[in-house]
Amino acid sequence: MKVGDFISVRDLEKNDIDFLLDKAEATEKKMAEGCSELDGKVVATLFFEPSTRTRLSFQTAAQRLGAKVIDFGSTSGTSMVKGETFTDTIKIVDGYADLLVIRHSVEGAARYAAKVAEHPVINAGDGGNQHPTQMMLDLYTIRKLKKKIDGLNVCLVGDLKYGRVMRSLMYGLAMYKANVTLISPKGLEMDVEAVKEVKQKFNAEIIETNEMNLRDADVLYVCRIQKERFTDVYEAERVQKEFRVTKEQIDGCKKDMVILHPLPKIDEIDLAIDKSPHAKYFEQAKNGVPVRMAIISELLKKK
Amino acid sequence: MKVGDFISVRDLEKNDIDFLLDKAEATEKKMAEGCSELDGKVVATLFFEPSTRTRLSFQTAAQRLGAKVIDFGSTSGTSMVKGETFTDTIKIVDGYADLLVIRHSVEGAARYAAKVAEHPVINAGDGGNQHPTQMMLDLYTIRKLKKKIDGLNVCLVGDLKYGRVMRSLMYGLAMYKANVTLISPKGLEMDVEAVKEVKQKFNAEIIETNEMNLRDADVLYVCRIQKERFTDVYEAERVQKEFRVTKEQIDGCKKDMVILHPLPKIDEIDLAIDKSPHAKYFEQAKNGVPVRMAIISELLKKK
Amino acid sequence: MKVGDFISVRDLEKNDIDFLLDKAEATEKKMAEGCSELDGKVVATLFFEPSTRTRLSFQTAAQRLGAKVIDFGSTSGTSMVKGETFTDTIKIVDGYADLLVIRHSVEGAARYAAKVAEHPVINAGDGGNQHPTQMMLDLYTIRKLKKKIDGLNVCLVGDLKYGRVMRSLMYGLAMYKANVTLISPKGLEMDVEAVKEVKQKFNAEIIETNEMNLRDADVLYVCRIQKERFTDVYEAERVQKEFRVTKEQIDGCKKDMVILHPLPKIDEIDLAIDKSPHAKYFEQAKNGVPVRMAIISELLKKK
Repeated sequence: MKVGDFISVRDLEKNDIDFLLDKAEATEKKMAEGCSELDGKVVATLFFEPSTRTRLSFQTAAQRLGAKVIDFGSTSGTSMVKGETFTDTIKIVDGYADLLVIRHSVEGAARYAAKVAEHPVINAGDGGNQHPTQMMLDLYTIRKLKKKIDGLNVCLVGDLKYGRVMRSLMYGLAMYKANVTLISPKGLEMDVEAVKEVKQKFNAEIIETNEMNLRDADVLYVCRIQKERFTDVYEAERVQKEFRVTKEQIDGCKKDMVILHPLPKIDEIDLAIDKSPHAKYFEQAKNGVPVRMAIISELLKKK
Repeated sequence: MKVGDFISVRDLEKNDIDFLLDKAEATEKKMAEGCSELDGKVVATLFFEPSTRTRLSFQTAAQRLGAKVIDFGSTSGTSMVKGETFTDTIKIVDGYADLLVIRHSVEGAARYAAKVAEHPVINAGDGGNQHPTQMMLDLYTIRKLKKKIDGLNVCLVGDLKYGRVMRSLMYGLAMYKANVTLISPKGLEMDVEAVKEVKQKFNAEIIETNEMNLRDADVLYVCRIQKERFTDVYEAERVQKEFRVTKEQIDGCKKDMVILHPLPKIDEIDLAIDKSPHAKYFEQAKNGVPVRMAIISELLKKK
Repeated sequence: MKVGDFISVRDLEKNDIDFLLDKAEATEKKMAEGCSELDGKVVATLFFEPSTRTRLSFQTAAQRLGAKVIDFGSTSGTSMVKGETFTDTIKIVDGYADLLVIRHSVEGAARYAAKVAEHPVINAGDGGNQHPTQMMLDLYTIRKLKKKIDGLNVCLVGDLKYGRVMRSLMYGLAMYKANVTLISPKGLEMDVEAVKEVKQKFNAEIIETNEMNLRDADVLYVCRIQKERFTDVYEAERVQKEFRVTKEQIDGCKKDMVILHPLPKIDEIDLAIDKSPHAKYFEQAKNGVPVRMAIISELLKKK
């Protein structure tokens, strides 16, 4: 891997991703044995914006590699409340730890931190911008379940305008020559420029629609539609109902279609689906551990 | 041990408890040496209801076995606030960790989690229901201090109606043929059905009284009487005073009587007692570590 | 070292400090290798008053030695809110851990805890009183950067009346025969008795002034002047401006003068200074890890 930090999908070449997916696969296979590869290393998790799942996934990954973890805790109990700058906080933690995992509500925060810190920085989500390790585990999950990514019909369903995860995923899927269908309510379509860029860059065919037609889908990737996006409460409810994944909705779909979701989910997937063989989102979440192990290991090997 | 989770005293046979108490004793003896038995394992502590003492005790136990710990943190900074279901939270953490320790304010939450999770679950207290590791360390402490449990005169003092710990302890003591005396203020007596069940099941003699007669006690187990249980403030104060353990109160007791308390205590035991040789509640708290080590070790060996 | 706890600078002889500074130096040199010296040991961090930097520094130090960490968390989620006494909390945690690190807003809290606990206690700051590990890392940083302490011109600048760090540092510097200049706004001078004591005890020359004359300084140690100390807002702003460290302010200073700060800093040092070769406060913060490793290691070796 060329880069010393893990900030954005755009910093990565397909080779890098291939390499990391392979490394994650190897990591998963030997995970049960225990590992002391990063013995003596300290990983800091700095979640300026809370996210239990992602924080625990990184802490599990670091510790399964033998590293120790220091956690910044919620920002309420920190020097930030005393007025310390973000720069100072990063520099101080950079003096303690060997690698920093950062989640922040401001776009570009992780990139900025990577410039300030001497040690490697992993972006665990910055505002509506990037969440590159999520994309990695999404690709990993698809590849693991389907044995390939190219040529698969992947439907991205939900709020594609504000959903940070979806834009990165479209990018990654296009890179891998999947057939991407973007399904969203009117007004929550994926950013036009983002679609255009991906089409040109990867010569990808991206279908855009407002219809829940899932017949040919190999992978159905669902994300939440937030009520707050609508001014009209009735319209919000109508749309949430229309794009909700139910048994009826997936009736007639491919038998081996898999449903993914970045989690946490609220009610956008009917609870009855959880027990169907299509539901793979908990396995997907679990895959975050070997994928993050591979990334952490690679970055710490480099420095 | 037959069971793969540790949810309720009722799932355990006396053999299981004997086995775990012996294992805890062996664990305590070699604790100072350090241990890497669970190297490579990850234990998650999920305290949906805060309890510093219990959380730290489990985290110490897991780490003294060589396991790593991930902590869910307070629920405020979690996906729960975004509306995620308890089921989803458990499933996700189950994907990261090898064992889950759960405390929840809702009765049955731990049992439910054990059904959802593939990995072993330990109940660290669910509502007013069960707190089985507390009972284990109580029995362990009594056995350690008195070299036996059967035939001992054990007085359980305080709020026996709402005190979750007391009901489990009565059950365990009866199983071990101790002579149990239940001492509570009027209106805060132990649940009639619970007493009846224990009498029948273990052919135990349980004495019930509202009088603080401690003359024959070998063990005095105290728990808090909360003011909120009384509508009349004066009555609350009168009762708290009457059942408070003071030097006068234990005057004339057996010289080797030991006083236990699940902690935290407020003012139900006079501070002067802390320095008396009767006071063993801090040693009791300390015993939580080897007892929980034994339980964690056993459950992870099984899977 | 004679003492079994690390509570106050006044408990230490110069020999002890020398020994610890040497040990920290040796520790820092071999830090990258990883260390398992404290394998099997548990260190508890109890921060009754939040301080991210100090907490993370101790947690890093303990873990880099191979010890495990249990963290008390913020006091909101603890038994303290249920009314448990400080004594009980200390006794319980003392039963779990091998060493306790305590920060508390009340003066003397750490000393009291050391009396209650059987295991070693480190004072991580108690109210306006002592913060001895900060002084250690300050001396360590000065010695590391300047190869000596005695004979150096050290200016302590800012609020010397309420700044807990400054009084300890004056004490340590006088012990090492540095030439100390105390520079503060009127009304925020160092306590007269403290200066008198240090002068007598170490036969030290201490210069006191209200002027920012930094021409001869080898070390400039800055701390924050809080607006709340002034009744007059305009006076507060005038003073903050006057004692602010800017490029103009240090124009004409020695080329190898170093600027230190206990951090977090707000605006008492101009951001442009951060990039100057004088700024050494982030390196200073980083030095907290080997210094605290040396102290923890020494205390745990003893017991």
